[in-house]
Amino acid sequence: MTDALNAALAKAASDIEKTLDRVLPPASGPEARLAEAMRYACLSGGKRLRPFLTLEVAQLFDVTPSCAYRAAAAIEAIHCYSLIHDDLPAMDDDDLRRGKPTVHKAFDEATAILAGDALLTFGFELLAGQDTHPDPRVRLELVATLALASGAHGMVGGQMADLAAEKSEGELDLHTITRLQKMKTGALITAAAEAGAILGKASAEARTALKGYAHDMGLAFQIADDLLDVEGRVEETGKAVGKDEARGKATFVSILGLERARAQAELLTEQAIRHLAMFGTRADLLVALARYVIERKS
Amino acid sequence: MTDALNAALAKAASDIEKTLDRVLPPASGPEARLAEAMRYACLSGGKRLRPFLTLEVAQLFDVTPSCAYRAAAAIEAIHCYSLIHDDLPAMDDDDLRRGKPTVHKAFDEATAILAGDALLTFGFELLAGQDTHPDPRVRLELVATLALASGAHGMVGGQMADLAAEKSEGELDLHTITRLQKMKTGALITAAAEAGAILGKASAEARTALKGYAHDMGLAFQIADDLLDVEGRVEETGKAVGKDEARGKATFVSILGLERARAQAELLTEQAIRHLAMFGTRADLLVALARYVIERKS
Repeated sequence: MTDALNAALAKAASDIEKTLDRVLPPASGPEARLAEAMRYACLSGGKRLRPFLTLEVAQLFDVTPSCAYRAAAAIEAIHCYSLIHDDLPAMDDDDLRRGKPTVHKAFDEATAILAGDALLTFGFELLAGQDTHPDPRVRLELVATLALASGAHGMVGGQMADLAAEKSEGELDLHTITRLQKMKTGALITAAAEAGAILGKASAEARTALKGYAHDMGLAFQIADDLLDVEGRVEETGKAVGKDEARGKATFVSILGLERARAQAELLTEQAIRHLAMFGTRADLLVALARYVIERKS
Repeated sequence: MTDALNAALAKAASDIEKTLDRVLPPASGPEARLAEAMRYACLSGGKRLRPFLTLEVAQLFDVTPSCAYRAAAAIEAIHCYSLIHDDLPAMDDDDLRRGKPTVHKAFDEATAILAGDALLTFGFELLAGQDTHPDPRVRLELVATLALASGAHGMVGGQMADLAAEKSEGELDLHTITRLQKMKTGALITAAAEAGAILGKASAEARTALKGYAHDMGLAFQIADDLLDVEGRVEETGKAVGKDEARGKATFVSILGLERARAQAELLTEQAIRHLAMFGTRADLLVALARYVIERKS
């Protein structure tokens, strides 16, 4: 199954890269630098986990591939915006992302802020566009779902809570860090899966199951990220490692310890997989993905 | 007419303030600082020109007031996000806005970036929400129109072009600065008027007329802003003046000179007013607004 998953991940990543390349604004005019930075941020590889989720869920419901690609590209644009802003000096102050200079390093801070703003806006523009789905209600639901997942109660709220946690004197507890990660990374991962279900006009039952899957898988993914920060090597992850510890930042690993953190990730993975029972073998790649996120080396 | 306009502007500003206060997320949890910054940015007064436009255009078509308020609040949230990000040290580096410390001064840079991100997202969330209009097609058109006006081809693109212009050695010409301002401030002003027409399911003819009005009025507004930067006083405008000149920044005034800039603003105002002919006396306040923007002292 790992081979089939790797092939599917590679194909999805390549298809999403092509879609983004086609739909992103071309660089022209005095503001060309903006489009260049947007393209630099979006077309620099990456796992493309979120778009893969959208595409795989969409295929469960026989969604027209071109529609699924557009929605997936929109979600990846929103993800890329969040990475640009998170990397800024005033935030996590990162110089490397996917083994390349971050946007504010490759361009400058003002351009990075604006490229993030433009990508977020572009995500909604894409979702609202006619080519994403013939039914306006579907497009509207995509917009509403992604707005909720990315805003003050989701991704942005999670980043704020994360910054607050870094500044606080006391130790974080498991409840606080779980809530924080559910907002910061979980909400968009869940919305990516949900988008596939929305495109497919899935039943309420199927949608709830897929949200449950993405929720558990997303949390396992985050715990695995914390484990990688401790165990990974810079050559493999393409970003600095050991940073969390150097900053004295609380993570699942610092709270639970390596072994319990790994056990928790495995538990969540099994739980995620159980949500997929109703889809039978059509969900085989989603099952494989849940296993992959805790086994990956980067 | 000035009294009627002042009363209407004051009422709209107060109603929008109340709407924003009601719909903005309350401050709670470890991320409370985010909601506080969003509220600080949105509830600190201001002319509320864009929401006023949405409300006044909506009343031409007897739009349910509660719908118009929500759409207008969404547009003001998007406007406020752009102000927060424009004021950042990496951008225009402003300490004062509406006579109060800018968001990154009152809070910090990271919070300001995130509050801007969250307000932009919140704008789309509001527009997509059921209470904004019963017809999902209308809500979707609002989202699409605002996304186009605020993104890389609109407001954000304009800010990028403006930063590029500041860095360039050569003098800007009238064409370049007009294009830049149409993107940076004009696109959202036009979209604010268009939103009222979308809510009212206006005819294509009416919509084109209202876009023409807002386009011309918006440009007159920007020229008036440049005039205020030269002629205004800090006590009246609530922000630093003479900044453009100190920075050697090209403006309509530096290119055209005071007299020709003023004449151009007046010409645009008359042109804006002519677009309103088809609406008769129902557009009286929009007519008065066009006159006001070039006569205001702040």
